[in-house]
Amino acid sequence: MDEKITSRENAKIKYACRLASSTAFRRTEGRFLAEGRKLCPELCRGAELETLFYTENALEKCPELAALPGEHYLVEDHVADKLADVGTHQGVFGVFRTPVHTLEEVRPGGRYLALERVQDPGNVGTLLRSAAAFGFDGVILSEGCASVYAPKTLRASMGAAVRIPVIETGAMPQAIALLREKGITCLAAALYQSQPLSAAKAGYPGGVCVVIGSEGQGLTDQTIAACNSTVRIPMTDRVESLNAGIAGSILLWHFREESL
Amino acid sequence: MDEKITSRENAKIKYACRLASSTAFRRTEGRFLAEGRKLCPELCRGAELETLFYTENALEKCPELAALPGEHYLVEDHVADKLADVGTHQGVFGVFRTPVHTLEEVRPGGRYLALERVQDPGNVGTLLRSAAAFGFDGVILSEGCASVYAPKTLRASMGAAVRIPVIETGAMPQAIALLREKGITCLAAALYQSQPLSAAKAGYPGGVCVVIGSEGQGLTDQTIAACNSTVRIPMTDRVESLNAGIAGSILLWHFREESL
Repeated sequence: MDEKITSRENAKIKYACRLASSTAFRRTEGRFLAEGRKLCPELCRGAELETLFYTENALEKCPELAALPGEHYLVEDHVADKLADVGTHQGVFGVFRTPVHTLEEVRPGGRYLALERVQDPGNVGTLLRSAAAFGFDGVILSEGCASVYAPKTLRASMGAAVRIPVIETGAMPQAIALLREKGITCLAAALYQSQPLSAAKAGYPGGVCVVIGSEGQGLTDQTIAACNSTVRIPMTDRVESLNAGIAGSILLWHFREESL
Repeated sequence: MDEKITSRENAKIKYACRLASSTAFRRTEGRFLAEGRKLCPELCRGAELETLFYTENALEKCPELAALPGEHYLVEDHVADKLADVGTHQGVFGVFRTPVHTLEEVRPGGRYLALERVQDPGNVGTLLRSAAAFGFDGVILSEGCASVYAPKTLRASMGAAVRIPVIETGAMPQAIALLREKGITCLAAALYQSQPLSAAKAGYPGGVCVVIGSEGQGLTDQTIAACNSTVRIPMTDRVESLNAGIAGSILLWHFREESL
């Protein structure tokens, strides 16, 4: 029989809430909180589950939760409400160890996505999911990107955050320089002075990295200058722009794993 | 000097609110309500603006609103709050005539997107925007789709709703049959017994229609059977699925206007 948490002031609950709300706390603790009956088991496939909280109702609907690893706690509904980042939730919450990856793991011949200051959690999550879907080897995030392990990003990525190596780094131009030293061709997504995607070859035996900038400003001039060349998605003049998640996913599709 | 509306019970305000909240009312009236300092002028490029409401503050920030056609009314902030579908708004609202298009306008050799029971307004809006971006000639929506002229869809489409002909129809299989009579190849997006997109040719001189189903269930069996063949986006096994807006946009990119 699992221990039951009845107080919103329980130390484990307060710790979990702080993981959900603070990027800095997630980073120093090396842990994150995820919510979802489907998302938590999904995340177990790529990250270590330390603590699982669920309501009685959630366990009834989903008895297989009991088979997941880690310490388990039943929580009362009002405690679950406190853990939830959004109004509606499914009564299942997990504290996971954050997988850590570094730029040193980047390998020649690989396929990478780099995001510079992409601030919308939905876009970051969507792009992680598309990168995993199309066989990319890793995602590099500059400072200023939405946190990969924030509740909204985790929901949008549907667990892809732990199915593809995520590398959090500082300034993007330095990261690009390091990739280029490894022989990886870095392509900046930019509207001006760029070649249309339809003219860009898809295969780069030495490796390729697609570099995407923020929703409002796009890439910084320094990052564009650090890349080998630029590429854009050609469009009719009937729209001004595409959503960043959409544009990025089309680029990822173009540069997908050859077997797909 | 524009007339000023100070009451939330003003008949024009109540009429506009009803347009925002009721699909049936929009349909019988042949009008819709849009919100946004950028969206309203954008929609003027493709739809007739009948009435424009703005707050003093919005007019100060955006004096060019005064040059838009139609009847103009200043509204007090609390009246604007009533017109707004979401908590935050920019104080600019327009009542537009809904452009009406029918299946009879579908032309041999054209490029079409057909949506069957796509229920998420964000996905419908995103797909309209991508279809306009990639040179499609029209979008066909079955019964059960999110309303194109609902506030959320209009926001997601960023005005594309009036830059590409939108045809609202009933059951999808009948619409597909009509397109095929015109020599248009209809391709159903489906996961099973389908050919990968990478193997699908992009050019169809007789015309092509990409058919996409609902987020949860996909296309109905009847619609798949009515199409010429099926196509899917190949993916690694690291994700279960792609977001419907993303998957659809990749298909639209693949079948884009030749000049792009």
